[in-house]
Amino acid sequence: MRDDQRSTCPISTALEIIGDRWTLLVVRDLMFAGKRHFREFLQSEEGISSNVLADRLNTLMENGLITRRDDPSHAQKAIYSLTRKGLDLLPLVVAMSEWTQKYHPGTRRPEAVDLIQRTPKELAQLEAQLKQLHGIR
Amino acid sequence: MRDDQRSTCPISTALEIIGDRWTLLVVRDLMFAGKRHFREFLQSEEGISSNVLADRLNTLMENGLITRRDDPSHAQKAIYSLTRKGLDLLPLVVAMSEWTQKYHPGTRRPEAVDLIQRTPKELAQLEAQLKQLHGIR
Repeated sequence: MRDDQRSTCPISTALEIIGDRWTLLVVRDLMFAGKRHFREFLQSEEGISSNVLADRLNTLMENGLITRRDDPSHAQKAIYSLTRKGLDLLPLVVAMSEWTQKYHPGTRRPEAVDLIQRTPKELAQLEAQLKQLHGIR
Repeated sequence: MRDDQRSTCPISTALEIIGDRWTLLVVRDLMFAGKRHFREFLQSEEGISSNVLADRLNTLMENGLITRRDDPSHAQKAIYSLTRKGLDLLPLVVAMSEWTQKYHPGTRRPEAVDLIQRTPKELAQLEAQLKQLHGIR
């Protein structure tokens, strides 16, 4: 356990990494919206501010959930990628989506319904596609 | 969609309810530690303050994840119970625990390992026990 951890509880530890209103939105954008650049995350409809976005991207990098490199196709841009650790949040994100769609039907977006209706095999295919896209071995 | 919601995205909606460092710790205590009283939640090792705890309990009630009633066995105490909506966070909590234990092995508590190693049948049994304990029909 690190000195700054609240406890050795896995739930508590996860919440110290992803327990806020914004972090998983960036992960969502990387997973399902094909977003890879700072400006793209800024444009999501929840209206994240550039300060908060910069902070969450840094925390995601420090915790090994994403990486950042120069985008070969844009000289002045950085491109963000999920790591395996970040991609492994997929089951949690699916469980979260399932729960909300059950209890807050107003949030039942077609693309989210599609997500939770995937079979385990289809989810594995999505994961394989994301691995390829983000260069995860 | 409520006026104060950021978007109709289920991930975003869930984060507006449970996206902070403390809320799911209270849910965890109700699910796995058998805690039902204000003072018991206060004693968890993460050291939640009574202000934050009172706030999170209220938000959990407003969002229909828990209920509060007078405890018949303690004249001056309130007892908190999970609702079905709260109990239905179980798959999310299991997914969260699984992820942390994979990537932060220092958090691998025996009781958490036990949780993620349960078969679907054993998880269903746990759910049934919790339903009975919390009076969920």
